Amino acid sequence: MVIEKDDKLILLTNDDGLYAAGLRTLLEVMEEFGKVVLISTLESQSGMSQALTVKTPLRVKLLEENEKHRIYTCNGTPTDSIKIAINQLLERKPDFVVSGINHGSNSSVSVLYSGTMAAALEGCLYGICSVGFSLNSYLPTADFSVCNKYIRIVMKNLAKKQLPYGVCLNVNIPAVKKNEIKGIMICRQSKGNWKEEFEKRKDPTGKTYYWLTGIFQNHEPESLDTDEWALANNYVSLVPVTVDMTAHWYLDELKKRF
Amino acid sequence: MVIEKDDKLILLTNDDGLYAAGLRTLLEVMEEFGKVVLISTLESQSGMSQALTVKTPLRVKLLEENEKHRIYTCNGTPTDSIKIAINQLLERKPDFVVSGINHGSNSSVSVLYSGTMAAALEGCLYGICSVGFSLNSYLPTADFSVCNKYIRIVMKNLAKKQLPYGVCLNVNIPAVKKNEIKGIMICRQSKGNWKEEFEKRKDPTGKTYYWLTGIFQNHEPESLDTDEWALANNYVSLVPVTVDMTAHWYLDELKKRF
Repeated sequence: MVIEKDDKLILLTNDDGLYAAGLRTLLEVMEEFGKVVLISTLESQSGMSQALTVKTPLRVKLLEENEKHRIYTCNGTPTDSIKIAINQLLERKPDFVVSGINHGSNSSVSVLYSGTMAAALEGCLYGICSVGFSLNSYLPTADFSVCNKYIRIVMKNLAKKQLPYGVCLNVNIPAVKKNEIKGIMICRQSKGNWKEEFEKRKDPTGKTYYWLTGIFQNHEPESLDTDEWALANNYVSLVPVTVDMTAHWYLDELKKRF
Repeated sequence: MVIEKDDKLILLTNDDGLYAAGLRTLLEVMEEFGKVVLISTLESQSGMSQALTVKTPLRVKLLEENEKHRIYTCNGTPTDSIKIAINQLLERKPDFVVSGINHGSNSSVSVLYSGTMAAALEGCLYGICSVGFSLNSYLPTADFSVCNKYIRIVMKNLAKKQLPYGVCLNVNIPAVKKNEIKGIMICRQSKGNWKEEFEKRKDPTGKTYYWLTGIFQNHEPESLDTDEWALANNYVSLVPVTVDMTAHWYLDELKKRF
């Protein structure tokens, strides 16, 4: 793959692994927008958040190359993949970091645990226009093609104008039929949390082990400006996500306490 | 350990592993404030961010118990440890989730990668008053006892009044002599990023591998209200950290774009 001066260069990753249907869908759409370098793990890395690999070495392998894309595997997390691609693999700084399409939504506080959104956050820490896409379905039969129209709308918009430094987009798409989606809604992250229900089991030697499971609880189902409301009402939710985790609104109150 | 009605119950963890000096220092100070349940991995989990273990089962082992504390090991991430302790191990919801003392600062954007701060974020998602402590030194000889005075000040303050839902504290302590610390400063997270410098090596079979290393770059060294400035000027930095990653200030601008 030759990257010409006028080509847009897109760095693509996900956290569901190289053979995930969502990644393949996103690769196809991204090829309409530029030359694509895809880097992902062979197996899924769901729930890896912005984890880094610091205790074991990273390995990268060029798997496939044609006129439109280059595909690498990496044994690290989605965040490692973005870091090593930018620093060691790419000819130049990419124009976009794009992540997804995640198999399952990353709305509300799931953004904190999401490997998909961590990759986008990592991209915008490098000053690169970054976005994560997720489909609100965990079904193995999920139809990712419903996302294509909205991925195109978002990418065309971002191509016109960069996002501010340290801000990326969290795009969640409802898993309904194409004609049932009502459009795009700019939202804030809904207040919520995951209520855990660990499954306690015994292994063949009689020792206890646990599986993490959980149910999401929306703390404000009545609010009309959240990503959870948008998804529940068949809108594509678009949340601007920042790397600044300061509770700015609480600074003055905290100063009074100390 | 018997937890009486009037006892404060403190859930303690870290990301440097069970035998880290910082954790032992924090355990001692916490025993002044209540009954302590400590849960940590045997080995360090640095840079794990808010990662979850979803593909392998979790195992927990009671290692030690006396009148003042109970110590468990867990094979998961710091976030897993908090979740499983609250859901499976504790008699009741703890009054505090306390994490650290991290060996190295978690100021600026390091909060995004930090397992220590992820544990505090997890605590406040449960509505528990949560705080992470870090010492700004990576030296193996780091003296954690310099933190004790400020840990006590913070804990006494929190015992008087809970933090708002979804907000925890990120406390970073300069690694200087006790009498050189000038006091506590309420700060915002400094803008910055890590500039990676991957070390490329060959293994004995001639195959390439990489080690992730990096240097932190402060984007606003001249700003006087950041955690980086506080640490550089021998103040203990105290940043209120929120689970809400929405860039609220950019919502209106984004609405105009779509």
